[in-house]
Amino acid sequence: MKKMKKVKAVKKVKKIKVQKVKIVKEKPIKSVPKKSSTLDIFFKAEKIAVIGASHEIGKVGNVIFRNLYQRKTVYPVNPNASEIFHVKCYKSVLEIEDSIDLAIIAIKADFVPAAVEECGKKKIKNVIIVSAGFKEVGNNVLEKKLHDALEKYGIRCIGPNCLGILDSYTELDCIFLSKQKLKRPGQGGISFISQSGALGGMILDMASQKRYGITKFISYGNAMNLNECDFLEYLGKDPETRVICLYVEQIKDGERFFSVAKEVSKTKPIIVFKGGMTQEGSKAVLSHTGSLAGDGRIYQGVFKQTGLIQVNRLEDLFGAAGLFEKFSKFNIRDKRMGIITNGGGIGIVCADNIIKNDLKIAEIETSTRAFLKKNLPQTINATNPIDLMGDTTDERYKIALDAYLQDKNVDFILVVVLYQTPLVTEGVAEVIAQAASLNKKPIIVLTSGSEQGILNRLEDKGILCFEFPEEAIEAVKKFLDSKVR
Amino acid sequence: MKKMKKVKAVKKVKKIKVQKVKIVKEKPIKSVPKKSSTLDIFFKAEKIAVIGASHEIGKVGNVIFRNLYQRKTVYPVNPNASEIFHVKCYKSVLEIEDSIDLAIIAIKADFVPAAVEECGKKKIKNVIIVSAGFKEVGNNVLEKKLHDALEKYGIRCIGPNCLGILDSYTELDCIFLSKQKLKRPGQGGISFISQSGALGGMILDMASQKRYGITKFISYGNAMNLNECDFLEYLGKDPETRVICLYVEQIKDGERFFSVAKEVSKTKPIIVFKGGMTQEGSKAVLSHTGSLAGDGRIYQGVFKQTGLIQVNRLEDLFGAAGLFEKFSKFNIRDKRMGIITNGGGIGIVCADNIIKNDLKIAEIETSTRAFLKKNLPQTINATNPIDLMGDTTDERYKIALDAYLQDKNVDFILVVVLYQTPLVTEGVAEVIAQAASLNKKPIIVLTSGSEQGILNRLEDKGILCFEFPEEAIEAVKKFLDSKVR
Repeated sequence: MKKMKKVKAVKKVKKIKVQKVKIVKEKPIKSVPKKSSTLDIFFKAEKIAVIGASHEIGKVGNVIFRNLYQRKTVYPVNPNASEIFHVKCYKSVLEIEDSIDLAIIAIKADFVPAAVEECGKKKIKNVIIVSAGFKEVGNNVLEKKLHDALEKYGIRCIGPNCLGILDSYTELDCIFLSKQKLKRPGQGGISFISQSGALGGMILDMASQKRYGITKFISYGNAMNLNECDFLEYLGKDPETRVICLYVEQIKDGERFFSVAKEVSKTKPIIVFKGGMTQEGSKAVLSHTGSLAGDGRIYQGVFKQTGLIQVNRLEDLFGAAGLFEKFSKFNIRDKRMGIITNGGGIGIVCADNIIKNDLKIAEIETSTRAFLKKNLPQTINATNPIDLMGDTTDERYKIALDAYLQDKNVDFILVVVLYQTPLVTEGVAEVIAQAASLNKKPIIVLTSGSEQGILNRLEDKGILCFEFPEEAIEAVKKFLDSKVR
Repeated sequence: MKKMKKVKAVKKVKKIKVQKVKIVKEKPIKSVPKKSSTLDIFFKAEKIAVIGASHEIGKVGNVIFRNLYQRKTVYPVNPNASEIFHVKCYKSVLEIEDSIDLAIIAIKADFVPAAVEECGKKKIKNVIIVSAGFKEVGNNVLEKKLHDALEKYGIRCIGPNCLGILDSYTELDCIFLSKQKLKRPGQGGISFISQSGALGGMILDMASQKRYGITKFISYGNAMNLNECDFLEYLGKDPETRVICLYVEQIKDGERFFSVAKEVSKTKPIIVFKGGMTQEGSKAVLSHTGSLAGDGRIYQGVFKQTGLIQVNRLEDLFGAAGLFEKFSKFNIRDKRMGIITNGGGIGIVCADNIIKNDLKIAEIETSTRAFLKKNLPQTINATNPIDLMGDTTDERYKIALDAYLQDKNVDFILVVVLYQTPLVTEGVAEVIAQAASLNKKPIIVLTSGSEQGILNRLEDKGILCFEFPEEAIEAVKKFLDSKVR
């Protein structure tokens, strides 16, 4: 019964897609309808075969098995074991009595095509191949063999040479790096597609550190079968995904990418970071995912024309993603920044960066000035940026936030908390969170230093924090450029 | 006897300076010889009066007193107390029987000129005024009154409206922010001059977090008497200071700055970050330190002509300072970067950034290739950047480091440690520290993620670590542009 429902759901989604994404109608690409039919099953699979499962700690097949077997029905496959963690082990997927939604393959590259053949015979239609050793190391013969096996049985594949996927909602996690070393972020609206596994893992780990919420993470490696276009198309319709991040080195099917990206970016922000923007970087790509990166300027043009938000610093991919996830809901009229600070110098540096990035320093209303003048000490200049001074209390932050939230000339609020000053307490996190919870305007915080308590408290409350003014304001620029037109 | 020696030292330094800094000879500026005679006493003072010392926790005069009284002979001055922490308290400096090297003034602005008068009568020649409330809040009358009192008695003054100073070697610390909130960095070769107090405090606190070693920190606020020129000149001759960082909003005496900066930068790197580069930023300066910031482009020109290293991102001030402190000792021939990584994607991003910043990707020697081919697994491409792959061990890092240290075509080594991969252990910190300790070539590390153990271990061993490729390579650019000509 459950199975029947699933099939129906698949058909429904398929129908919607055909109507929306014109490229599929106009210029059908071989095997696209099959490949791009909903990828849901990759993320919602309940019955999973792990080919190469191992009880040996540190092995890839061990990490994957351990990450999955407490949450899903997992069938370990390994000819050299009879059981793994007390779960019956199979010599081949063909021996498994149950039907299988998804197979994850983590064995030596040479054995992968044969394992895929067995998956085909078992009627497994979805595989993730984490194994490396194909065209990225020059083994084109093996790559071709694998390709043929997938084609023969009509199997959709993520990889090979990838890190796996993660879904924070279904808790499907086949990332082969252990949770001790790569912490998993919590649930949220950011989905991340990465051609590079290690870089993707690094970003994922940083996201967990910064308490960013993730919907889905997809590392797709050599992109032999499913590629960035399929994932963009899928995530464009994924209800939990509010913003898509893409790390890409090479796009193979430029025409399809153009139409898919253009379509999806109409409804969801897509932030892209391109590896191999220079000739020398491109050269390095070849020995990485076996791709050729091409001319950076061409990509730049494509991203612009398709409405993608290209960032040129890895740190900005990060910052911008957080902003789009949290603040896309706001209706923002202009790029007028309100800055509340307890340090004059850092206020100046923020002002410099706002101007450099073609944002505006809000001219606060006369009523705001009057309110600030009335409620703050005489020595404080009631202007924007407002410097609450080194002897500021949490209360002064509250007064300034209240004023800026009311002010019609302020579109976006940046709060600088130099926690080094004596009278600011951790309670300022409450004050800021309270203001943010009114959902009137986007509020971000700039804070740094050795005392991480304030940072943790703010991030725990879902406040986006930055360490340096440049990264904060460059991320805001990406966000406002896209939101305010 | 000790005193006699000091006087001699002072005379000696004075002599050297007059010979070297031509501006003093050519165009003497009123009271410069007095002001710019060695500032040693500010940092080496042993007998210190704290005017405004308080037993009330949280008060500025309390923090200063507590930071000083265990290490120096401190005389608290406060008409409302008879003793502070069991130390006899004086109603006025005039009551103190002993001679005083330095007075620190932390009382309400209105009372400062009178306190300075008393210092003059007591023959105290050096004061630090942390009190705010002068021209930065429009109180020009009070500023003038203070100025006149200082002139009348020939008193040298740091401040007013400043955070104080810190010397890691003499342990003189009159920074009025508590050690709980602003951790003090350890000893090292970086001296930091900051016009802004809060920004300076933030940087100092971050330096402690990153284990950067500091010689001296000087926050000089309104620069009424001693200014950036005096401090540059002094630090230029300070034996412990290997690199000078300067945060400046306004330079008042451009001519003197020009000649002092030009002279000092011949022997020591000076990294400068200018607040108020834009018109709007400048406007904010006025209500901060009561200065006018002027046109950013003019400053840019001055910095270039005087051999200063200008950074445009606050984070770069930080990164570059670390590089100059650690690596100025190396003789570096060219800008050829060797990159060792365990992630291909991040290697590509590094390569992109190296090219964008006009550095070079080293063409490693044939012998290096042979060595790497022989000692590393077959699947690893013996090229630069070298990708040690996701299954790398600490041992592979050692092999690659050994090879790059030998290679004549590699000038600077960047090691990427994605600690998320399974077989890298904290032992890699030992491997890198061992290579660095050979003092053959500069080595820095790029590492990030939720697991901070590896970062702490590396930083404890004095290895400079960066989180993002852009900040790392932009800092390297600043360093190599200055070192390689």
